[in-house]
Amino acid sequence: MATPVVRFQFKNPTERQTIQWGVLFGTRIAPLAQAYETTGEFVLQGMALAKACTVDQAHIPLADVQLLSPVTRNQQFLCQGVNYESHVRESGLNPASFPFNTIFTKSPACITGPYNDVIRPRHVQLLDYEIELGLVLKKDLRESTRVTPDTLHEVLAGLTIVNDVSARDVQLPQQQFYKGKSYRSFGPVGPYLLLLEPQEWKRLPQLRMSLSVNGSVRQNDVCGSMIHPPHATLTELSGLHDLAAGDLIATGTPSGCAAKAPGKAAMFIAKHLLSEETKWKLFIRNGLKNPLYLQPNDVMELSIRTDDGQIDLGAQRTRVVPA
Amino acid sequence: MATPVVRFQFKNPTERQTIQWGVLFGTRIAPLAQAYETTGEFVLQGMALAKACTVDQAHIPLADVQLLSPVTRNQQFLCQGVNYESHVRESGLNPASFPFNTIFTKSPACITGPYNDVIRPRHVQLLDYEIELGLVLKKDLRESTRVTPDTLHEVLAGLTIVNDVSARDVQLPQQQFYKGKSYRSFGPVGPYLLLLEPQEWKRLPQLRMSLSVNGSVRQNDVCGSMIHPPHATLTELSGLHDLAAGDLIATGTPSGCAAKAPGKAAMFIAKHLLSEETKWKLFIRNGLKNPLYLQPNDVMELSIRTDDGQIDLGAQRTRVVPA
Repeated sequence: MATPVVRFQFKNPTERQTIQWGVLFGTRIAPLAQAYETTGEFVLQGMALAKACTVDQAHIPLADVQLLSPVTRNQQFLCQGVNYESHVRESGLNPASFPFNTIFTKSPACITGPYNDVIRPRHVQLLDYEIELGLVLKKDLRESTRVTPDTLHEVLAGLTIVNDVSARDVQLPQQQFYKGKSYRSFGPVGPYLLLLEPQEWKRLPQLRMSLSVNGSVRQNDVCGSMIHPPHATLTELSGLHDLAAGDLIATGTPSGCAAKAPGKAAMFIAKHLLSEETKWKLFIRNGLKNPLYLQPNDVMELSIRTDDGQIDLGAQRTRVVPA
Repeated sequence: MATPVVRFQFKNPTERQTIQWGVLFGTRIAPLAQAYETTGEFVLQGMALAKACTVDQAHIPLADVQLLSPVTRNQQFLCQGVNYESHVRESGLNPASFPFNTIFTKSPACITGPYNDVIRPRHVQLLDYEIELGLVLKKDLRESTRVTPDTLHEVLAGLTIVNDVSARDVQLPQQQFYKGKSYRSFGPVGPYLLLLEPQEWKRLPQLRMSLSVNGSVRQNDVCGSMIHPPHATLTELSGLHDLAAGDLIATGTPSGCAAKAPGKAAMFIAKHLLSEETKWKLFIRNGLKNPLYLQPNDVMELSIRTDDGQIDLGAQRTRVVPA
């Protein structure tokens, strides 16, 4: 059975303030003895201990702690773009023109906890959300490695929920994915790292992502709709550069984001008749009328699980606050 | 006077194999007692010790060691794009359409030593070079910080040479800066981290970058030609996300790369009359006729120094080899 691993700190400042790791059993945590500094260290040294934890060791009430991101900020934070046809189409792009796997990064410095506030910078007006399945590496990959659906468990430790928060008015007009997606707090990760058993990896395509804003569902799709599935992405990335145990790969988002492409006629006019500057002014002006962009006090809830609840990555809950 | 700090390992396998830090005096190294694991650790704990080293402590012959990158792979590796007008123009772009500072990342996993081979991946045909001035952070920046030319020394520890090696046939047709620039060995850094004294930072605009291939000069410009100078970039990046001591910012490259935009007529045809696919097929076909792209056995030499030699970041020398 899958093991939900949490990284946490006591809320009560009189308690021990070291960051700890543990295994979640319902509403109680079984703590691990060692305080691993990084996700890489936990994965390499603590994973077997976590899997061996039992419910009678779970003596810390979940309510007493603050959950932190199970992925630490020293790790690489790689992201796939345009990895769901539905999202490619709503972005006004043709899936056929993306035969390759689009990779970019978010700064690991933007990683934040699963219940922390998402801060909207003062100059950002078009703040958007993107639910994504996060893959966490089990070991260092120091050479090109062919990964198949059957060998995922040899390379991956587990899964987590990522919200790839995006400032569309920085990302798109400036064509700057990194900047628009790396502001402080733009990377909520968690609530836990779910360690899967080897046979459970086969169910990855059945995982359903659901993101709601203020209780109304905006995104809802299964991971099986990915264009470039995890084994293909891991094969390609291992051929690009070294990956380390604990590194995080966010696998792209399905449709339902606030940002949507205008109609075909408007796209044609924008491409052929407008200057770049005018085009993006219109993009922002139209965006400001779009009620789907996030506003201060909006609450995002993200969950990823199989429909039968057998594999459950938990739920993330974050509130948007002004800078 | 500036202090050249090296990170090194003995060539002779019978010597102590720990990675060490030291200060270069001509052809000899004065080693530091502690083996800092990361550039951040060195900067925070070892910098004062390095500045206090004297020539009589320099007992290790440079010839006995292999110099490693002075920036370790745990650090963030941020890059500025289109930061020299001459490079913007040769890329067929209009500098006026880039009022913002373009930021992307290379994977820190691609960092390699200053004399190591650059490996051309099997599928890459259009391999290019980019000499860049590298800035190394002196302290953690955890909030938006206004940096001025006069306060650079409070934020930066020193400078180093970066070669932003780029596979143009991945980067441009796929519009994937990260992938095209992050292959193993695509980030030679060094030969040393030059720690500057406060008053020396004023001479940063006078630093001259020079890159040659097989002895013929391809790139030659001064850092003063940057569009977005270091203090502006640090101000902006500190407002984006946390930066850590030891992090590396490569500040963009001047003209002289192998990749150049075609003439205006060809650009017009490509933009308005050709499909994306045809356009990039032509780009690669033309590129294959361009003798400036790097070939196996080509040797790149990179130096950055003031014309009077008072501030000298040394010279990098790398050879291209096939995968």
